[in-house]
Amino acid sequence: MTKSIEVAEKTANIMKSNDQLFQNLGANLETIKPGTAKVSLVVTEKHSNGHGFCHGGVLFSLADATFGFACNSYNKRSVARHCDITFITPVEIGNRLIAEAREIKKFGKSAIYDVRIHNEQNDLVVVFRGQAKEISGTIF
Amino acid sequence: MTKSIEVAEKTANIMKSNDQLFQNLGANLETIKPGTAKVSLVVTEKHSNGHGFCHGGVLFSLADATFGFACNSYNKRSVARHCDITFITPVEIGNRLIAEAREIKKFGKSAIYDVRIHNEQNDLVVVFRGQAKEISGTIF
Amino acid sequence: MTKSIEVAEKTANIMKSNDQLFQNLGANLETIKPGTAKVSLVVTEKHSNGHGFCHGGVLFSLADATFGFACNSYNKRSVARHCDITFITPVEIGNRLIAEAREIKKFGKSAIYDVRIHNEQNDLVVVFRGQAKEISGTIF
Amino acid sequence: MTKSIEVAEKTANIMKSNDQLFQNLGANLETIKPGTAKVSLVVTEKHSNGHGFCHGGVLFSLADATFGFACNSYNKRSVARHCDITFITPVEIGNRLIAEAREIKKFGKSAIYDVRIHNEQNDLVVVFRGQAKEISGTIF
Repeated sequence: MTKSIEVAEKTANIMKSNDQLFQNLGANLETIKPGTAKVSLVVTEKHSNGHGFCHGGVLFSLADATFGFACNSYNKRSVARHCDITFITPVEIGNRLIAEAREIKKFGKSAIYDVRIHNEQNDLVVVFRGQAKEISGTIF
Repeated sequence: MTKSIEVAEKTANIMKSNDQLFQNLGANLETIKPGTAKVSLVVTEKHSNGHGFCHGGVLFSLADATFGFACNSYNKRSVARHCDITFITPVEIGNRLIAEAREIKKFGKSAIYDVRIHNEQNDLVVVFRGQAKEISGTIF
Repeated sequence: MTKSIEVAEKTANIMKSNDQLFQNLGANLETIKPGTAKVSLVVTEKHSNGHGFCHGGVLFSLADATFGFACNSYNKRSVARHCDITFITPVEIGNRLIAEAREIKKFGKSAIYDVRIHNEQNDLVVVFRGQAKEISGTIF
Repeated sequence: MTKSIEVAEKTANIMKSNDQLFQNLGANLETIKPGTAKVSLVVTEKHSNGHGFCHGGVLFSLADATFGFACNSYNKRSVARHCDITFITPVEIGNRLIAEAREIKKFGKSAIYDVRIHNEQNDLVVVFRGQAKEISGTIF
């Protein structure tokens, strides 16, 4: 395992253990590498918007958490500045979602990441684009 | 009280009682009128992103819920299609947030809403814009 | 006339005279004040997208130019980093458009501006939100 | 050549010949296939924003035109509803740009397209995401 992958894994483990929302969400970090992350979530009743579908806030939180792991994976503390999300199709309770973040471009202290969420039928259900900004400090 | 305000209040009460995420968030609906809504949230440890600040997913969920009340206030079931959010300044644990949604434009089955979140020092901390789409059905 | 309005007018005049696209567009700066600008455009055949409507690129350019005047009005050179635009209704050839930009928030070297374009029937036809960033240098 | 590629080429040729802004821009359609398009532009003085760089309105128009060819390539008339654009790095006069659009998802009468613009040094200078909507009618 290369040094940069070790760094990415260490940052993600620290972030996970400190992130109350991620823990409450019940999501699971599947993969973390420099500039990329994969997170899964089984949608349950507690994620419901009351119409039997997964809440937009849950889908955003899943995408945002995946983006957060990816953009912090170099151990330079980074925060989201602007995000946009498109909801393609409703997600039913019980479905298992996979969110994948990848780096589109780093420039100066800014970076752009794309996140896509697929359901277990492999339909694309959400596209998300996040603009990150490096702030001072490191994760560990 | 006019008929349209009664309708807005009734839709919001039904939506609130069915929305698990809203209840878990601990937010409070302050005002609901046709095309506009105000929601408050006291940020607690459970909303933390692990750096002592409110999680972006919580801020999005607060904005999205406020948008949801506003865009469903005519008792025509509406869903979010696209949202974008800008995080202006970090929000500390313990602060009380006010989110206000207002309708910018309705056109056909589409609508645009703006949401602003202020902290208790009255600083603007989040701007959010949501595109809603009417689907079939009513709230009650 | 206050000093800050004089500064805003001077920056706008310099920007206009250097901006080839603005001149080719045929737009007209109506008002400029610190953090706000108003620009008009009569839509002609040359702005057509071939369906008898004003081209989305023209509407964006009009919004972007108005945003540019507003965000440079403090005589600190600023550039657009991210913009989003929603096209509400088609604009016909011959119509006269008014674009108005206003500052939503300045924070550090960043700023958020909203632009709205109305047609001569006073219908809102475009909403635009721009994120600006101050770079080094001044306009004059 | 398959039927669907013929259809795409025919729609693009008709759109080009009717589109005044595309012609004034001086852009060149390089490739058109179902759901994808490539357009080049040599940036000249007339595209200048007055600081010696390519105008944001020109970059948007290039991205939007490429998106327009791609989303109309099935010969179902489609229009942009919402676009967002991130400006990564300034583009100098004289540079040759390549814009590439690809379909991310079609769902119902909606579709999402991504456009990327690279300069001749192959740096990514713009990312753009467009939401299209099918309206009634065909291109030919």
